[in-house]
Amino acid sequence: MTRPAPLSGFPEWLPAQRIVEQRIVDSVRRTFELHGFTPLETRAVEPLDQLLRQGETSKEIYVLRRLQADAADPSDSGLGLHFDLTVPFARYVLEHAGRLAFPFRRYQIQKAWRGERPQEGRYREFLQADIDVVDRDTLPLHHDVDVVLAAADALSSLPVPAVTARTNNRKVCEGFYRGVGVKDPPAALRAVDKLDKIGPDRVADLLVETAGATPAQARACLALGEIAAPDLSFVDRVRALGVTDPLLDEGLAELAAVVETCGEHVPGTVVADLSIARGLDYYTGTVYELRMPGTALSIGGGGRYDNLASAGDVRYPGVGISIGITRLLGLLFGRGVLSASRPVPTCVLVAVADERARPAAVRTATALRRRGIPTEVSPTAARYGKQIRYADRRGIPYVWFPGEDGDEVKDIRSGEQVPADPQAWTPPAGDLHPVVTATAGDAAGTGGADA
Amino acid sequence: MTRPAPLSGFPEWLPAQRIVEQRIVDSVRRTFELHGFTPLETRAVEPLDQLLRQGETSKEIYVLRRLQADAADPSDSGLGLHFDLTVPFARYVLEHAGRLAFPFRRYQIQKAWRGERPQEGRYREFLQADIDVVDRDTLPLHHDVDVVLAAADALSSLPVPAVTARTNNRKVCEGFYRGVGVKDPPAALRAVDKLDKIGPDRVADLLVETAGATPAQARACLALGEIAAPDLSFVDRVRALGVTDPLLDEGLAELAAVVETCGEHVPGTVVADLSIARGLDYYTGTVYELRMPGTALSIGGGGRYDNLASAGDVRYPGVGISIGITRLLGLLFGRGVLSASRPVPTCVLVAVADERARPAAVRTATALRRRGIPTEVSPTAARYGKQIRYADRRGIPYVWFPGEDGDEVKDIRSGEQVPADPQAWTPPAGDLHPVVTATAGDAAGTGGADA
Repeated sequence: MTRPAPLSGFPEWLPAQRIVEQRIVDSVRRTFELHGFTPLETRAVEPLDQLLRQGETSKEIYVLRRLQADAADPSDSGLGLHFDLTVPFARYVLEHAGRLAFPFRRYQIQKAWRGERPQEGRYREFLQADIDVVDRDTLPLHHDVDVVLAAADALSSLPVPAVTARTNNRKVCEGFYRGVGVKDPPAALRAVDKLDKIGPDRVADLLVETAGATPAQARACLALGEIAAPDLSFVDRVRALGVTDPLLDEGLAELAAVVETCGEHVPGTVVADLSIARGLDYYTGTVYELRMPGTALSIGGGGRYDNLASAGDVRYPGVGISIGITRLLGLLFGRGVLSASRPVPTCVLVAVADERARPAAVRTATALRRRGIPTEVSPTAARYGKQIRYADRRGIPYVWFPGEDGDEVKDIRSGEQVPADPQAWTPPAGDLHPVVTATAGDAAGTGGADA
Repeated sequence: MTRPAPLSGFPEWLPAQRIVEQRIVDSVRRTFELHGFTPLETRAVEPLDQLLRQGETSKEIYVLRRLQADAADPSDSGLGLHFDLTVPFARYVLEHAGRLAFPFRRYQIQKAWRGERPQEGRYREFLQADIDVVDRDTLPLHHDVDVVLAAADALSSLPVPAVTARTNNRKVCEGFYRGVGVKDPPAALRAVDKLDKIGPDRVADLLVETAGATPAQARACLALGEIAAPDLSFVDRVRALGVTDPLLDEGLAELAAVVETCGEHVPGTVVADLSIARGLDYYTGTVYELRMPGTALSIGGGGRYDNLASAGDVRYPGVGISIGITRLLGLLFGRGVLSASRPVPTCVLVAVADERARPAAVRTATALRRRGIPTEVSPTAARYGKQIRYADRRGIPYVWFPGEDGDEVKDIRSGEQVPADPQAWTPPAGDLHPVVTATAGDAAGTGGADA
């Protein structure tokens, strides 16, 4: 068998990188729990008809087929891998509504899959960390603030550069497009969503071709998208464009409330940006996009979806936000700015003088583990120099030497060796587990395994 | 839209059950790290040719296809979801060998998928917790002991009934079958593996039909499978069957060493059982099966695989063990013996007198969260009785009342209400997070959501 090649778009980390990823996920999870979001996981698959209810994603779905499909058992035909965590969550809420307490707040940290062409920051398999709140019938606007405060708190607890949340409101755009006289406001939204990718001139063409706009109307739509502000000044700038519409008024009031409240709790983090559209069709109000300074890449986003889930007469409006963990890590590993102090959890290696002494070494390791100290027993009874090299290659800071007149432990970085009792010895807190640090790093992108 | 129906074989937990699952996974992970296993994740997909190298599994594989497959980009065609974590790990080792330090110890806690017909304890999507050690060229036998000690330690740290590891050695079986004169020892192994499912009479028939055994040889094979012992007495009982073969000798020596060493470190946990075969073809020596008392269901297993991975002249022998988290939880939830004290992480609900007071309530919540106390702000400014009911329905133990003359906090279980400062108040440690407990429970199976 030859050495396997990486699969494009399916990133895998090296052990030290996985330690960083775990630390990040643990921290995000802890913050979400501090904000009262309950943990949840959904299955990886959904019926295709569920996945296809949303626009512009059908081409990206991975469909499943059993290798030896069985016509007599169609129970797992027509399934696809989920492409986000919002659609499965909406389905979960409907399915289990009778056993959930509303408003229902959950977080969900899971992989998702999209068959997109891989490129920088775009993966076919990626880890997402989502929070959402859903309620029955109506969901007050303060939940829109809730989720972005929790996400901002989660991100600011990480050893990563500060992230800003660009925010907009679908009602502002749709109301404005309608007020300005564009024939097909949803088509206009899809056109403006491509602003980053294709630029204003081609968006203007698209507005004319697909949304039935006149060139003057297209210019007005683009003028709206140029408005951005960290405070309420955006309201007057929209008004100055001279467009009136009741939905626009409603959207401006909502957006102003979100920007104002967030400015009070996390100043400078949430910025109104009227060019933000978000690709998915299910958003109906507030939308968010999380950006890291120095990159145009979004590392997350979300928004309000009032119509994603309903059963009979009952509607379940929701609002949520999603952090793209894989994209965040790919970016930071690529810049070489995040690292773990060692690629193993092990703090102590117990040396083995000869194979007959292995049982005693295992007992020493057991005693250290019971006291919470990650410990390995040397895999060979080679000469001590070789065993120390085993520890050194892995960044294991301590080697334990059993002795007839009492044990000793050596800090292999300083060379200091002292008598020690496995029932009492404790390493400094900073050595117990690998330490994850952010450094200034380079921009050359030498970090990732196969990002 | 109507209420969605569950998908058979794809279990999903309710929030309180997910809290239990997380606690179990955290505990297993902590134990694996204490034993010096480094965290790892592999992508969910492998090339089909990798997945099909192993026997008897081809029918179970889910193959992926993009909904709008693109002939111009075949980079993600021919992929399937992994059916275990061992095959992906072997591939990972080959792919990244140049950047790993050997022997390489890793743990991996991930979902796997098999298109099998769902039944009790058998899922199409399930969570596995694996540990493995691989080395280059050779891997000493003491690693076989290593992995079962770590797994036993992980399981004994959980609030679940004690698990035993039944152990055997493929060399014992193959050597015995060869020594007894059976024409096709691997076929005999596959036949004996069905003992639990089809019983001794039909296994005897299979041995004759598929392995070329005479009826007397078949009886000898079955006699071997009847031997089980918690100590070394199994060696004499095998010898008493009068079969000799060099591979049998080698296997007996290995099995005796494993049973003896485990008996020293975890007495009563590892038992020799010569009926254990394990379905997967890749095992070459020690095999393990983890069983919970009172059920014939295996909740995990593993073994030695000397030939799973090789590149050019370099071979990477390994040994590992896998705990079936989903199967374990399905079993225990079904019996109603594992539960969490509340279905939310929240410890404190901050009450809101009217909507104008919400910003102050958010600031109080922020202060409590900064001190590690999971806190929600009441979603409505309804009368306090209703806000207390919100907490009560979710098992949130404390409600916080902001007041002009100082705040108060109420333990809604006892009704006791005391003055409190968000910068200083701390709940009892037992109230801070949900508590997971094991109870005697019932056997009626009322627990699971859709197990």
